[in-house]
Amino acid sequence: MSDFKAIGKAFIDFYYSKFDQGPREGVAALYEPVNGMMNFNNVDFAKGAQEIAEKLRSLTFQTISHTVSTMDIQPTYDNCIMIVVTGGLKADNDPPMQFTETFLLRFINNSWLVINNVFRLILHG
Amino acid sequence: MSDFKAIGKAFIDFYYSKFDQGPREGVAALYEPVNGMMNFNNVDFAKGAQEIAEKLRSLTFQTISHTVSTMDIQPTYDNCIMIVVTGGLKADNDPPMQFTETFLLRFINNSWLVINNVFRLILHG
Repeated sequence: MSDFKAIGKAFIDFYYSKFDQGPREGVAALYEPVNGMMNFNNVDFAKGAQEIAEKLRSLTFQTISHTVSTMDIQPTYDNCIMIVVTGGLKADNDPPMQFTETFLLRFINNSWLVINNVFRLILHG
Repeated sequence: MSDFKAIGKAFIDFYYSKFDQGPREGVAALYEPVNGMMNFNNVDFAKGAQEIAEKLRSLTFQTISHTVSTMDIQPTYDNCIMIVVTGGLKADNDPPMQFTETFLLRFINNSWLVINNVFRLILHG
């Protein structure tokens, strides 16, 4: 899988562009529909595209803009791609925040789908 | 895999305790010996336990201490465990820094080994 870097980068560009342009629950279609998992700065994860869409809709901000600072992309043992992003975001009129986000992608039915995802705000202090 | 949270937490406790106690290249034994990958705040990754041990030895700090702030643990589609940590660290007499680290673990030969790992310092902007 020599092109894992190009695939990872294209995925990240597409994901945040779709998330920021809205409606943000549109990114739920990028997760494996049954087993895909998303943890959005929370204790527990949402599982499956429907739960993930509901979770995304329930977030309280109206507008958001992500900026990627670092992106590390690795092929895995069994042909997945792991991506770790750090960056900044601006939600509504809140102060800018920093975040980290990890995606695990698998090639299923001719698409690279998210099977695992964790988003975390960086707490200062 | 109902005990993924306990496994993930035990792994993280052990990893940082071994890393901080030193010699830090001792954690190389926790990676899959041939295909394990580590990216330590760098552009490219080290692959295999030997390259990983060399990379760890080459880091310039003498002492380090990690503190975990958040730990998100997910089982994956195919029986791996993905762990995303955020936290703080203190290296030598440098100012405290924040970091994020992701581990992907697989059960191989009766042990949970790291197959993918990315460490990143959080840059404040």
